[in-house]
Amino acid sequence: MTDADGDVDIPESHPRYESLLTRHRIEAGVEAGITSRQGLVAQGRGEAFDYLLGERTLPSADAAERAAAAHLLLADHPVLSVNGNVAALVPGEVVDLAEATGSDIEVNLFNRTDERMERIADHLREHGAGEVKGLTADGTIPGLDHERAKVDADGIGDADVVLVPLEDGDRAEALGELGKVEIVIDLNPMSRSARAADVPIVDNVVRAVPAITDHARDLADADRGRLESVLAAFDADEALSVAERAIREGGDDENGT
Amino acid sequence: MTDADGDVDIPESHPRYESLLTRHRIEAGVEAGITSRQGLVAQGRGEAFDYLLGERTLPSADAAERAAAAHLLLADHPVLSVNGNVAALVPGEVVDLAEATGSDIEVNLFNRTDERMERIADHLREHGAGEVKGLTADGTIPGLDHERAKVDADGIGDADVVLVPLEDGDRAEALGELGKVEIVIDLNPMSRSARAADVPIVDNVVRAVPAITDHARDLADADRGRLESVLAAFDADEALSVAERAIREGGDDENGT
Repeated sequence: MTDADGDVDIPESHPRYESLLTRHRIEAGVEAGITSRQGLVAQGRGEAFDYLLGERTLPSADAAERAAAAHLLLADHPVLSVNGNVAALVPGEVVDLAEATGSDIEVNLFNRTDERMERIADHLREHGAGEVKGLTADGTIPGLDHERAKVDADGIGDADVVLVPLEDGDRAEALGELGKVEIVIDLNPMSRSARAADVPIVDNVVRAVPAITDHARDLADADRGRLESVLAAFDADEALSVAERAIREGGDDENGT
Repeated sequence: MTDADGDVDIPESHPRYESLLTRHRIEAGVEAGITSRQGLVAQGRGEAFDYLLGERTLPSADAAERAAAAHLLLADHPVLSVNGNVAALVPGEVVDLAEATGSDIEVNLFNRTDERMERIADHLREHGAGEVKGLTADGTIPGLDHERAKVDADGIGDADVVLVPLEDGDRAEALGELGKVEIVIDLNPMSRSARAADVPIVDNVVRAVPAITDHARDLADADRGRLESVLAAFDADEALSVAERAIREGGDDENGT
């Protein structure tokens, strides 16, 4: 069976399906010039944490994904930030999430070059994205050095809710200080990015992004009260503690699963 | 202060000295065409495990490093196997260890290409290596497919003790079945490579290789009886358990350190 993007032929029944698909997409990302060397090292770090987590979505991560969906639906101006690894791993899934939540998509790179910005924007458009922000770079995030600070004034600069998957710690902290609601996807619950987030999602981005989309579709007709009760049910500190315990202790300690 | 290879200028007092040096060497390895994409991902996995371990050498890892030194000194024909990441990270340190223990150096790549073999051999020679084996490839390890099986008949093929840092699980298991004493350096104590080893060293290769050399110099004048008592004092299963516990539980549970 071919995966959703038609880009690789791995049977979904294969026990290592997700892992092989991930590896394939990262390799393709390097070929396409959108995944950086740092991105490959970061991918390895994520693999190790996911291995220790048992390569599964914890119930607390699922609750975080549902809270993320509620935040994006409640937002006046939600923006999904995309870097090289996110573009390589879940391009079509990010487009689906943007559609399900009415979010903008903005490319934001830790190592920003015009060439890689353009390639990633093109890659997202090939996967169905309409407008891709990030190329104007007429806004800045205070507290970061020049290249790292660049955002679009009418994108992340104007957003009230931002999803930043796999974000660098410095930028996650700087974004958090802007008073925006920050949703982070990061497999390391001890990372500064996860700790800076209003909603930290300790899960593989390959599982997390489609899960947020599923929750957003499920909540599409929910009123403000119901969305706010989803938010109230989620405890970020507790989710981080549970995830760290799962990684440290080998994990099947949550809800007896 | 400049590091031993004169290749980077990071003060040793810098809190992230080792991490920055490692990152710098891996980057240089990519530039030099000796570190592969898989090598970068593997580097990231190692970083995550080392982070959980507290980026320190456990006493049990130090005991493993001492046992490794004793095995290399007791061997009739010890061989140090070198892949792309090892060549990038510790080229001079491998040459020092070979000199301290009378070991051969052999290049062995998971993704073998003649070009990368030559580049790695050249890189090792630039760091002081004499003969570098691995290019003849006139021997094979049974149980592996063609390219993965290649070794030098008068190198790993003839060795009675082999150090394989950062080795792939399949090859570590196949080597272990040949009846050779196998020493593995791997930051994941649950990996097949670590479990296949007679002496698993759960430590960063940047710390482990110089530590084995230090032990070898310390034991240079030891007689066979003393070297054998060093081996007898090391328990591989116990070392793996302690390392896993340190990673899982955050670590300071060994000898009260």
